[in-house]
Amino acid sequence: MVRGRSATILSDGREIIYYSSSPAPPPAPPDRRGLAARARRSTLRYDRLQDAWVIYAAHRQDRSLLPADDQCPLCPSSSERLTEIPAHDYEVVVFENRYPALGADGRGAPADAGDVLAEVPAGGRCEVICYTADHDGTFAALSEERVGLVLAALIDRSVALGRRDDVEQVFCFENRGREIGVTQNHPHGQIYAYPYVAPRLQRAITAAHRHRERTGRNLYDDLCAAERADGRRLVLERAHWTAFVPFAARWPYEVHCYPNERVPDLAALGPDALEELPGVLLDLFGRFARLFSVPAPYIAAWHQAPVHEARDLVACHLELFTSRRADDKLKYLAGSESAMDAFTNDILPEAAAERLRALGGRARPPAVR
Amino acid sequence: MVRGRSATILSDGREIIYYSSSPAPPPAPPDRRGLAARARRSTLRYDRLQDAWVIYAAHRQDRSLLPADDQCPLCPSSSERLTEIPAHDYEVVVFENRYPALGADGRGAPADAGDVLAEVPAGGRCEVICYTADHDGTFAALSEERVGLVLAALIDRSVALGRRDDVEQVFCFENRGREIGVTQNHPHGQIYAYPYVAPRLQRAITAAHRHRERTGRNLYDDLCAAERADGRRLVLERAHWTAFVPFAARWPYEVHCYPNERVPDLAALGPDALEELPGVLLDLFGRFARLFSVPAPYIAAWHQAPVHEARDLVACHLELFTSRRADDKLKYLAGSESAMDAFTNDILPEAAAERLRALGGRARPPAVR
Repeated sequence: MVRGRSATILSDGREIIYYSSSPAPPPAPPDRRGLAARARRSTLRYDRLQDAWVIYAAHRQDRSLLPADDQCPLCPSSSERLTEIPAHDYEVVVFENRYPALGADGRGAPADAGDVLAEVPAGGRCEVICYTADHDGTFAALSEERVGLVLAALIDRSVALGRRDDVEQVFCFENRGREIGVTQNHPHGQIYAYPYVAPRLQRAITAAHRHRERTGRNLYDDLCAAERADGRRLVLERAHWTAFVPFAARWPYEVHCYPNERVPDLAALGPDALEELPGVLLDLFGRFARLFSVPAPYIAAWHQAPVHEARDLVACHLELFTSRRADDKLKYLAGSESAMDAFTNDILPEAAAERLRALGGRARPPAVR
Repeated sequence: MVRGRSATILSDGREIIYYSSSPAPPPAPPDRRGLAARARRSTLRYDRLQDAWVIYAAHRQDRSLLPADDQCPLCPSSSERLTEIPAHDYEVVVFENRYPALGADGRGAPADAGDVLAEVPAGGRCEVICYTADHDGTFAALSEERVGLVLAALIDRSVALGRRDDVEQVFCFENRGREIGVTQNHPHGQIYAYPYVAPRLQRAITAAHRHRERTGRNLYDDLCAAERADGRRLVLERAHWTAFVPFAARWPYEVHCYPNERVPDLAALGPDALEELPGVLLDLFGRFARLFSVPAPYIAAWHQAPVHEARDLVACHLELFTSRRADDKLKYLAGSESAMDAFTNDILPEAAAERLRALGGRARPPAVR
């Protein structure tokens, strides 16, 4: 899918990589801003009661928050204004986050935390992916070709980041909407290359491991099979992908989308599954865009197996969810959720699936072949 | 502390209990609204990948959301308007939530969930606690005597709810502020009597169990001792209570407050610790009220040991935290937190503690004895 790729370095030392659908390498002009070098000093502390690392990034407290549209750092640069992206146009571009949650100039892979209060430099890396130069664009409005290029970029970066010795898990995601807390209105995704396996994935691995010990089977496979057999929560079924509202969904509208043949990560998808995926994603994101009279804020999260473990336990899939529960109501994570992790959901998964099915998919362009 | 207590039944069958500081039982007039009986049909579904129950309460979707101040259901009733509280005034009152997340008319205690997709009726109960008739009041502005009455009510309810055979954990908490998602502006706390041990508490129990197996010691004791020995994150130290920003805090401003002598729950507090607690709480809530130029939204969460297990592992304590990180900035739980449970925090716990220490406590009234 990627036909052109150009990499260069921003003035403060960060990597930037352009991807294009045409064969020629896309232009990668120099960054003329002359930024001072970044100091990266994130740390990890171990929360012993929750058995989880917490990331500290004090340098992020002053990052820019919802700048005016004419000050957007994710628009291409122009002759009048220099942005994070030196090029005057782009299709897809990935660059290191200027205010990263992860990354430390010291050594970052957390070792066994022996002390009750354990702190280590935070390895890993945070990247931003911009998939349209259109400040007012959305993922749902992209062409299938552009979505294919986004996926190719995510695969390229996941493979590269997974090879770093301070990375255990590569997490590709998009936050969309001020209600979710985006700090930039320009549509963009993010890649967090964690130096540890994130708690939510770790819990799934523990559960999948126990399930295999008990039954000999893969837990993700069993859950997908149960959803297909039940059928009431299915949103779409294609030759290579199936999407459903999970039986125990936490969010008002939540869809999990799996390839029909389990793979550990995006890079392991076969060519047929990969070719079908852009249409599937546009279908799902289109349904979410039509859920309410106002755009639904959403989080789109790609679950990929850790780089070094549980490769045969974890099934690569997308989790797409919104905190909006009605035109005028949001679901908040208040006391029960935030303090006890006990989720309450006012919308039954079967009702959510019925609504999402009724919203139809985006009309697919006629096949040319 | 409770000198008067009166219980009665609202017109739709819900319990309501008044607590007063004077010896005479407080008035408990009848509910003249003639509400239809409630149908309680919450269910629990098991999320196998996260090893956690999720609560479904479809009847909550239409609950009232931020009603106009003159329609507040938590103000006392008047001759012109009937509210949830039939009395014309109250000190502290507890009643069953009209739109409860928990509770089912069927049998609710979740048994071992054998199927991949397991659903059971949700036992348990949700209660509301109002601690001031003043619609514009705050917990931080209460008198010490009133806070003592609130604690007495929480203990009374925790004991009563813990005796129910569909309850495993009693969770007392307060959500404050629209940013946190409160649906009623009138200040109030809540009590969730869960029919299972909530995931966050369960993880702490698992960690504490493993710590005891490895070291022979109690994990909460070790963490409190480490915080006292380090000292940099202490916020207050009293004869019977210690409060600190935990080493691995998740929230911009987060304080954990422990009795110096470990107990499993509020009911087990000794008389000296209980007597000192109102002043300690008003001190902490006062500091939170002064953190920003606008009131800090907060969640105040009492961790109590489960009713039937881990009584010698869990230490009763309060966790108080805000999602506000600056006068004009909130911490959102976006992709990394909501989808991967990987928390990032821009404010170092030592810096948060320094600010909270500098804000001083509420001036304590001079001791009369």
